[in-house]
Amino acid sequence: MHPQLLNNISNYIKLTPEEKSLFETFWTEKKLEKGDYLLRNGEVCRTDNFVIYGTLKAFYINPIKGKEEILYFAIDDWWATDMESFQKQSPSIYNIQAIEDTKLLQIHFNSFQEMLNRIPKLERFFRIILENYLGSLQRRIILNNVYNAEQRYFDFLETYPKIAEKVPQYLIASYLGVSPEFISRIRKK
Amino acid sequence: MHPQLLNNISNYIKLTPEEKSLFETFWTEKKLEKGDYLLRNGEVCRTDNFVIYGTLKAFYINPIKGKEEILYFAIDDWWATDMESFQKQSPSIYNIQAIEDTKLLQIHFNSFQEMLNRIPKLERFFRIILENYLGSLQRRIILNNVYNAEQRYFDFLETYPKIAEKVPQYLIASYLGVSPEFISRIRKK
Repeated sequence: MHPQLLNNISNYIKLTPEEKSLFETFWTEKKLEKGDYLLRNGEVCRTDNFVIYGTLKAFYINPIKGKEEILYFAIDDWWATDMESFQKQSPSIYNIQAIEDTKLLQIHFNSFQEMLNRIPKLERFFRIILENYLGSLQRRIILNNVYNAEQRYFDFLETYPKIAEKVPQYLIASYLGVSPEFISRIRKK
Repeated sequence: MHPQLLNNISNYIKLTPEEKSLFETFWTEKKLEKGDYLLRNGEVCRTDNFVIYGTLKAFYINPIKGKEEILYFAIDDWWATDMESFQKQSPSIYNIQAIEDTKLLQIHFNSFQEMLNRIPKLERFFRIILENYLGSLQRRIILNNVYNAEQRYFDFLETYPKIAEKVPQYLIASYLGVSPEFISRIRKK
């Protein structure tokens, strides 16, 4: 198995060599080409997905505006999973699509439960990364309302410099809820 | 210690009597009167807070509109903690205030870490409730954009019937980003 996820985990918890070997048996690698869907709305999110390399966008179609809006991006070392759909094994309300060639580590829902039962230490890792993500989501809800468009753009550049480098401007505009022309204007200033 | 939190936990994991006794040593009860602040923006959220009874609102002041906006409500059996501030021990960007007399169970940041080290089984409990909350937050971000105001109101009633019963309409309006008059009009229909 690609070592990247175990390296990531070792920032938070220490696994024994036996636990690492067992851990690796639960995961499989998956390649997506640019444009491939990892998840479509209405489908159940069957796997938890860790990004080894590549970029994905999680998005939904806004029926009022008739266009797509970005919920989040996932790049190297991030997760690309609809947590609600995965946890409840219920239909997802959004889509996840690769916007460049991407490689994932995947674990199926039942294997995820079995893995946590057999390596309980991992609960701590997942608890901590969920806390991180939750904090960033609450922050996003507030700043979306409190910041004007220009402030949101600069906050995005500061918070997610690696995503800002990799992702086309028109998708960042969609994430921020502004027009692509607006970002072009700010960048010219 | 009030048994409500242990009852809640027993829905997810089984603790031994010894673990339960140890668990109880980490928590203290706290009463808030209506209007009391649990957290003010700029302060560090020092405790994780479980609501035994009462109601709190988490809110921030929108500087553009010059008025408060509700991030979430917490009622009996919910948590009222700024997770980002608590986890990083950094200043909070929002406020949490009791809107009726409220009783909490609290644990301090250092005690929380020690508790998890001494009762590792609890990691699972916190992992699962974070997954639940994360799913509901992502759903909220999407539905806020996809639903019109009337749909958001009915979704709120369906998703949070107990909160809808307890919380004044003008605060629900603030949570939904609509005017109080708008909700009055819908209810008359």
